[in-house]
Amino acid sequence: MSGYSHILLAVDFSDNADAVAQRALQLGAAFSCRLSLVHVVEFVQVDLSNELVLPQELELDQELLKTAQRRLQTFAAKLGIEDCQQFVVQGSTRREILRIAEEHGVDLIVVGSHGRQGIQLLLGSTSNAVLHGAPCDVLAVRVKD
Amino acid sequence: MSGYSHILLAVDFSDNADAVAQRALQLGAAFSCRLSLVHVVEFVQVDLSNELVLPQELELDQELLKTAQRRLQTFAAKLGIEDCQQFVVQGSTRREILRIAEEHGVDLIVVGSHGRQGIQLLLGSTSNAVLHGAPCDVLAVRVKD
Repeated sequence: MSGYSHILLAVDFSDNADAVAQRALQLGAAFSCRLSLVHVVEFVQVDLSNELVLPQELELDQELLKTAQRRLQTFAAKLGIEDCQQFVVQGSTRREILRIAEEHGVDLIVVGSHGRQGIQLLLGSTSNAVLHGAPCDVLAVRVKD
Repeated sequence: MSGYSHILLAVDFSDNADAVAQRALQLGAAFSCRLSLVHVVEFVQVDLSNELVLPQELELDQELLKTAQRRLQTFAAKLGIEDCQQFVVQGSTRREILRIAEEHGVDLIVVGSHGRQGIQLLLGSTSNAVLHGAPCDVLAVRVKD
């Protein structure tokens, strides 16, 4: 088994995003490997009327994605890795992270973990979700709640 | 944030235990840190009669623990880390791994993950269980089902 070759860091822009990123940077340095960033914009267009999506809604989506892209660029620059590949996608956080990992030969996903227990698990945790069905290793970096 | 200082590898003696161990060894080398092993013997003495536990049962427990200790020593020797600290304990896998991590200043738990989804999750997966309430980072090493 060789070391890691491509690490994918899931960025959620939370207060803990920096701590999780530092761990990903450490691993990237330890294995001299590629590090990419992904941020998933999780919003869903609900079209209750089942009619055509209004142009304003599409514009709002595009605006949210562009804002997230700029934010991720700033985040990467602060980490000193502005040249790394950055994915900003829309959809289910779990599904999109796993899709990008699969399509881009990622062998380690790094994600923050709140160490939730019991009922809180049902409310959803990204680390937990990503672990299920991941095509590669997953590092859950423990962050303070 | 400094690198990892104490990695705890959960050994289950499955066909994939070697692959998971190789990853833990790589990380231990990358961070020049301490690596310990833990194996949990998960058996429960059911005393339906609520009477005293028979001496034979206690002997069986001790025998199972001793067998597991020998097996873990052989496993460690095969990996070339026979001098590392080895914990063989009895109880709930999740609870014991987390307890040892907490008591021994572990900052990374390495555990195999089968990438289970849906209904299989309910049948229990160690990686999933350990993630919940872990006091430190958890690396789930993806193994073949």
